[in-house]
Amino acid sequence: MALSFYDISVPIFLRGLGQLSHLLDKGLAHAQASGIDPTTLVNARLAPDMYPLAGQVQSASDASKLGTARLAGLTAPSFPDTETTYAELQARIAKTVDYLQSVDRALIDGFEDRPVTMKARGNELNFTAQRYLLQFALPNFFFHVTTAYDILRHSGVAIGKMDYLGRF
Amino acid sequence: MALSFYDISVPIFLRGLGQLSHLLDKGLAHAQASGIDPTTLVNARLAPDMYPLAGQVQSASDASKLGTARLAGLTAPSFPDTETTYAELQARIAKTVDYLQSVDRALIDGFEDRPVTMKARGNELNFTAQRYLLQFALPNFFFHVTTAYDILRHSGVAIGKMDYLGRF
Repeated sequence: MALSFYDISVPIFLRGLGQLSHLLDKGLAHAQASGIDPTTLVNARLAPDMYPLAGQVQSASDASKLGTARLAGLTAPSFPDTETTYAELQARIAKTVDYLQSVDRALIDGFEDRPVTMKARGNELNFTAQRYLLQFALPNFFFHVTTAYDILRHSGVAIGKMDYLGRF
Repeated sequence: MALSFYDISVPIFLRGLGQLSHLLDKGLAHAQASGIDPTTLVNARLAPDMYPLAGQVQSASDASKLGTARLAGLTAPSFPDTETTYAELQARIAKTVDYLQSVDRALIDGFEDRPVTMKARGNELNFTAQRYLLQFALPNFFFHVTTAYDILRHSGVAIGKMDYLGRF
């Protein structure tokens, strides 16, 4: 069976978003069981100039949404970063999943050489879709899911590697 | 140009290992500039029961070494987890790079359906090589590189996202 460009991209984002939602559930349950205001976790961060948990979830949403749109040659919908509660962060993940699922695999499969141009820190970066996926979009997506995990773990939430990787 | 199973695996590990080495360099420079014993950073962790920086580097090494070996149907070399200094961690990364570069791409390309069996937490997990790469090996690898970044960032090292993603 030949490799499919869709299969190595969108389902990986979808799986990671599902695990991110699961990690948030664990964080909320921890807050409720410990009598901590859940907002404390939403605003927790690892360094003063790093995004808090909310920003990590928003960034994972953006990485997968923009990643999928760029692979498909589409313009991604804009999701304003206004979430301040667990319920709102879960809704952000759900609408990201909905968008990813709405993209036809026929727009992605076979288009690994599609030119992808993006601006980052004032520079214009030029990729093929394949190089963009593997060197930018996937590592960036996993960065934000992992950092969300690390914030929760640093805050005392009882999670382990399989809560990040998921079931097999 | 058709997708190559080698191209979506080994070069991604190699790039990530290069960035991990770069992040360690930044950590060492920070320790030297701040008059901190570099060993403090090697032993820094985000939670009492999480691996410290050394363990994250060892785990990223293992994830890429075992990942590559399993895709190629080989047995990976054993690297004992004995590193306690920056220099030793850099040497661990270098020998991991050497091993990855020694694996012939002909053992991986076209073998996306190769059966991969592994034990995790007492369970036997069965994958195709493609599913193993995308659902386990790559997310696990990026987890440990990102957590190394997060430990350094949490310890005050001045690094940013591009130090993780690399140059384009």
